[in-house]
Amino acid sequence: MICRYFLCFYRKHIVVLKLSPLSPQKIQELSPLSGVRIATAEAGIKYKNRTDLLLIVFDKPVSVAGVFTRSKCPSSPVEHCRASLPHGIARGVVVNSGNANAFTGSKGKHTTGEIIYAAAKALKVRENEIFIASTGVIGEPMDASGIINLLPSMAERAKEENWLEAAKAIMTTDTFPKLATCTFDCGEETVTINGIAKGSGMIAPDMATMLSFIVSDAGISSNILQSILSEAVQSSFNSITVDSDTSTSDTLMMFATGKENFPCITCKTDPRYEVFSKHLSVLLHELALQIVCDGEGARHLIEVNVIGATTNDDAKTIALSIANSPLIKTAIAGEDANWGRVVMAVGKAGVEVDRDLLTIWFGEHRVAVNGERDPEYCEETIGSYMQGKHITIRVDIGLGNGRATVWSCDLTKEYVMINSDYRS
Amino acid sequence: MICRYFLCFYRKHIVVLKLSPLSPQKIQELSPLSGVRIATAEAGIKYKNRTDLLLIVFDKPVSVAGVFTRSKCPSSPVEHCRASLPHGIARGVVVNSGNANAFTGSKGKHTTGEIIYAAAKALKVRENEIFIASTGVIGEPMDASGIINLLPSMAERAKEENWLEAAKAIMTTDTFPKLATCTFDCGEETVTINGIAKGSGMIAPDMATMLSFIVSDAGISSNILQSILSEAVQSSFNSITVDSDTSTSDTLMMFATGKENFPCITCKTDPRYEVFSKHLSVLLHELALQIVCDGEGARHLIEVNVIGATTNDDAKTIALSIANSPLIKTAIAGEDANWGRVVMAVGKAGVEVDRDLLTIWFGEHRVAVNGERDPEYCEETIGSYMQGKHITIRVDIGLGNGRATVWSCDLTKEYVMINSDYRS
Repeated sequence: MICRYFLCFYRKHIVVLKLSPLSPQKIQELSPLSGVRIATAEAGIKYKNRTDLLLIVFDKPVSVAGVFTRSKCPSSPVEHCRASLPHGIARGVVVNSGNANAFTGSKGKHTTGEIIYAAAKALKVRENEIFIASTGVIGEPMDASGIINLLPSMAERAKEENWLEAAKAIMTTDTFPKLATCTFDCGEETVTINGIAKGSGMIAPDMATMLSFIVSDAGISSNILQSILSEAVQSSFNSITVDSDTSTSDTLMMFATGKENFPCITCKTDPRYEVFSKHLSVLLHELALQIVCDGEGARHLIEVNVIGATTNDDAKTIALSIANSPLIKTAIAGEDANWGRVVMAVGKAGVEVDRDLLTIWFGEHRVAVNGERDPEYCEETIGSYMQGKHITIRVDIGLGNGRATVWSCDLTKEYVMINSDYRS
Repeated sequence: MICRYFLCFYRKHIVVLKLSPLSPQKIQELSPLSGVRIATAEAGIKYKNRTDLLLIVFDKPVSVAGVFTRSKCPSSPVEHCRASLPHGIARGVVVNSGNANAFTGSKGKHTTGEIIYAAAKALKVRENEIFIASTGVIGEPMDASGIINLLPSMAERAKEENWLEAAKAIMTTDTFPKLATCTFDCGEETVTINGIAKGSGMIAPDMATMLSFIVSDAGISSNILQSILSEAVQSSFNSITVDSDTSTSDTLMMFATGKENFPCITCKTDPRYEVFSKHLSVLLHELALQIVCDGEGARHLIEVNVIGATTNDDAKTIALSIANSPLIKTAIAGEDANWGRVVMAVGKAGVEVDRDLLTIWFGEHRVAVNGERDPEYCEETIGSYMQGKHITIRVDIGLGNGRATVWSCDLTKEYVMINSDYRS
């Protein structure tokens, strides 16, 4: 059961966010993972009457991998995680919502250091075994004292059952918590992957962060875990876009605890590598789609499917050009099968295409072929298809075997309303 | 005196477009140019009760230059103009609004050919001396008969005085006609440049066209005219963006009639080359800004000024990343000095920057310096600046001497409303 409204305090305004119409019918329930304990708390960083602080405790050292924003202006927490990754061991993760601690200069670096120090002390581990992420306003100095005071008690009361609470504590203006899980046979053992995520692109004013944390009880060495994660991110988190704006704080981290009787995967030739990769890809994809479905103001999920490009890279460039086009996104908000704008977006992508070889479908309906409108084009049939919540745009470039799929959401008045902050 | 409301018929809807609040106080009056005659007519291509067809007649052969869309899916008229340019002589231009004749396959090519043939016959000139542009819906077959029937009478009644009528006939959902003129001394003679333009980016549903036509009475050979035009376009039409969507039909053409007593400019070392270039740049810039000021739903003109980048190209990449960011454009719509989003856009541009060297100003107010918020930052002062119609964002990258300026407009609910077509 999901609440249909969320109150979000932003600047001097109370903003009521309606639950996204694309939200899942049911929030997934995640099973506990042995040795992975979770606590949340109200640190009052920005929000009132809700949790905004998450601590994940690993009772034993675990493998760790991470993928971060490509921004040239990353946040201080991102810099800390990047620097600690080579150590290859994690014992704890601290995440706060409400302030991104980004573009906060030497003060921000100091704040990150203080939190890391306090968490390491509370868990009695090394500082480079603590990972950190912050999500919220950019450029606002962050007071760490509230967080630091809470960490010791959180470390004590952390429990294995708290996955839903974890997903809630990292939300900013997300309208639903995002969780995914899968359990499968990997070699002779059954393993589980649990994941949580928050926020799509720049989902709300100043709150520029996509965060996701994944934990499995499989045993996988850190370098192999990094390789699996870096691959799996391509067709999931790196194939979604809400508004083409890249955050300073994007953080995806993965941990593998190595349960008993599961011999550690230490090389790519281990047959379990493929099995695990496949399941991780599906799980990341599920989380990524939840993020798009909670894109600010989203009412339609858009799948863009490009085939027949010269290369896969070309296909992805074209797919993103379509998925990011404000004019295509507004057309879909208006339930208008405006395929002329798809031609425009293909044309502006800058990669090799031949106008007269393009074929375009909306769902199963072919709308354009041989460089012009399909002779069978029927406005009524298409119009009815466009009223669905899930719209697929397929383009065959007709040149080669390159293909790519990306996901986006429509651009609605609500997006502008949320992001222009009611001020005017 | 400009009318405050425009009625625009789109699909099955009458859309009332309010005059842009950024429209000029006064529409410029353009003086006639000898031997340049203009006629407009109602061809009924899409609109009712307004002109939608323009014919410009050059009584003698004139020099010609052109710059076109970079789209890989250009319209048939664009292809014709590109093919005819090397001939270097123009005798007439035909422009229609209401249908872009883009992505219309072999039928579209045939339509272009028919119009060209009819215009050449009416003016008794060669077909490759007629240039053509079409603006409006993409992918809709265009019936040329209405246009063809009108051309002979238009050729007869064309007059030198009709510049304002010309600018009106090429409008689609523009809320004001766009004209600019300048008269200056060039060597020992006084010369004039007149220009008209329409439409910004993809200013309204399906109407994907920026068109501009410039005529001077100076004498300039076609190859030199091309060189002048290609340079001048960089800091004007190639430095504006409304929504980052590139049209299939963008067309900027320039003609030089070569008045008596003006020895033709035939090389770059002619001292008049620089004089003419400078004035043309100013005029194109003026037209380009009019286009941004009439961007769909625009309420604020945004000037983005990047200095201190490693190269000029880097500076332009960063400036466009800022100018195209939906989150910056919505913030400015909300009159919110959200400089954290500027940091985000600098970071995502992908070129060399050092977060801790960035300095950011809104107008004269420095908001960020040394990788964090300016210690003197005052929300109230900035808030009052943000209520102006013209917002300047200046960023010093702090690395080199590269600089660039681009112009954009804000992203408002009206943009979404216009482009999602009221359907939902």
